[in-house]
Amino acid sequence: MTRIVYLNGEYVPADEAKVSIFDRGLLFADGIYEVCGVLDGKLVDFEGHVRRLERSLGEIDQPMPLTGEQIAEAMHTLTERNNLVEGMIYMQVNRGTAERDFTYNNDDLTQTVFMFHQVKDLEETKASKVGASMISVPDIRWKRRDIKSVALLPQVLAKQAAKQAGAAEALMVMDDGTVSEGGSSSFYYIKNDTIVTRPLSKDILPGITRQALLDLAERENLAIDERTFTLAEALEADEAFITAASTMVCPIVEIDGLRIGGGQPGPMTIALRKIYFENARKTLV
Amino acid sequence: MTRIVYLNGEYVPADEAKVSIFDRGLLFADGIYEVCGVLDGKLVDFEGHVRRLERSLGEIDQPMPLTGEQIAEAMHTLTERNNLVEGMIYMQVNRGTAERDFTYNNDDLTQTVFMFHQVKDLEETKASKVGASMISVPDIRWKRRDIKSVALLPQVLAKQAAKQAGAAEALMVMDDGTVSEGGSSSFYYIKNDTIVTRPLSKDILPGITRQALLDLAERENLAIDERTFTLAEALEADEAFITAASTMVCPIVEIDGLRIGGGQPGPMTIALRKIYFENARKTLV
Repeated sequence: MTRIVYLNGEYVPADEAKVSIFDRGLLFADGIYEVCGVLDGKLVDFEGHVRRLERSLGEIDQPMPLTGEQIAEAMHTLTERNNLVEGMIYMQVNRGTAERDFTYNNDDLTQTVFMFHQVKDLEETKASKVGASMISVPDIRWKRRDIKSVALLPQVLAKQAAKQAGAAEALMVMDDGTVSEGGSSSFYYIKNDTIVTRPLSKDILPGITRQALLDLAERENLAIDERTFTLAEALEADEAFITAASTMVCPIVEIDGLRIGGGQPGPMTIALRKIYFENARKTLV
Repeated sequence: MTRIVYLNGEYVPADEAKVSIFDRGLLFADGIYEVCGVLDGKLVDFEGHVRRLERSLGEIDQPMPLTGEQIAEAMHTLTERNNLVEGMIYMQVNRGTAERDFTYNNDDLTQTVFMFHQVKDLEETKASKVGASMISVPDIRWKRRDIKSVALLPQVLAKQAAKQAGAAEALMVMDDGTVSEGGSSSFYYIKNDTIVTRPLSKDILPGITRQALLDLAERENLAIDERTFTLAEALEADEAFITAASTMVCPIVEIDGLRIGGGQPGPMTIALRKIYFENARKTLV
């Protein structure tokens, strides 16, 4: 089956989907992206992703090129035309094509918008059963990590370093010794039944799965402590996990070669993953 | 005349030069670029740009896709086919096209390489005669500014802020109060006949025009002090200037609305610009 992608209002075969070499996303990373999970052929946490897209675009002075309804329609079309049951839809918005110049002019702007799907098991995964490992790396990113931009080279280097060390994800540590987040995920640990995670700021991405997870944890009357913490504190945890649209809730059982808890996914993490999926299924779009 | 660009070994009309939406330069800013000045239809400081390209690529674990000779041949072809006399040739190398995944596999790598020219007056410019202005902005970039990557969104925002304030360039100031460099240029000031500029480190780009300029200044027995300095020190300067492949040596006469020196291009700056052009013409490729 030919993979169909969305490009600037059209549905085209993936190998025909191309953008100009003068696209500002390509020349300047002047673009924003979102990744939306798909379960049972439907979109997970969709409204949150649309809100964050609009916020990120606003922070770099780009308008929303499509309404939430138009985005949902395009993502549904991709899901249907590609028979996608489980995986993700990726969406990117760039500040269009222009003669190369760092500065821009939004007056006559035609943004570049594309979306494509990826097939991936989200629910029945090996990592969710046996847990995943992380290695710590210095967080060398820019100071506006709350903006979901495509200037992702630092994350590429961080996650490649993790892969080369045999780990599934990087755990990024700031100059002050505190943990920011995963290479492409939010990070949490559990100590004495309290879920600890870094509070929102410009230091981390406001995770959509993070928000959904914390809302659920609160509803379940679990203790949540949003505060900064060091790598050493995380290593002393009873349990640890990460969240992302592409992994949902994933247990972490090893950091820098040291076992977290007993080296097995923790009971609270397993429970949180279960209720996350239950809730996600209730709110599919 | 149709603008001809280089894309992956071919010379094609600019409006036909497109890359896949799965190109890693587009999705992850996983690419490196160079800008080479052109004077009299020939390349300025060419060897330095090739060396820096190779170094930047190496720092992000990408090989050189072409030899220096092949790059020179492509740039010469672009210069000839577009009748370029004065301006720049831009070159970008991305880690090819692959299914979207932060991590990469270089084993089966076909990099994306493109080049295009831009017509621009380099010698007879208004800014070189009356000077240009800068505004200071916080330097929010990542911690590997020595790598000339296309993850340029922070620079876009910095230079747009300068433009909106009526200035030609941004002067980036780090958290510790020291000046790093311009938004897309190296920065210098002159005090008591000494040229002051920040020493090379991961905090700034190793400017090719910067190196050529400092070599010339040394040859002229001018005093050079490579050290960190604050914005306040720069504001007390007798003269100030920036260098870049696209501006060569450009006098700065105002920072944050405050005049530098007498608000006119300084005599040492004018002399440095003159000898820079003289030397550049002697070493054209």
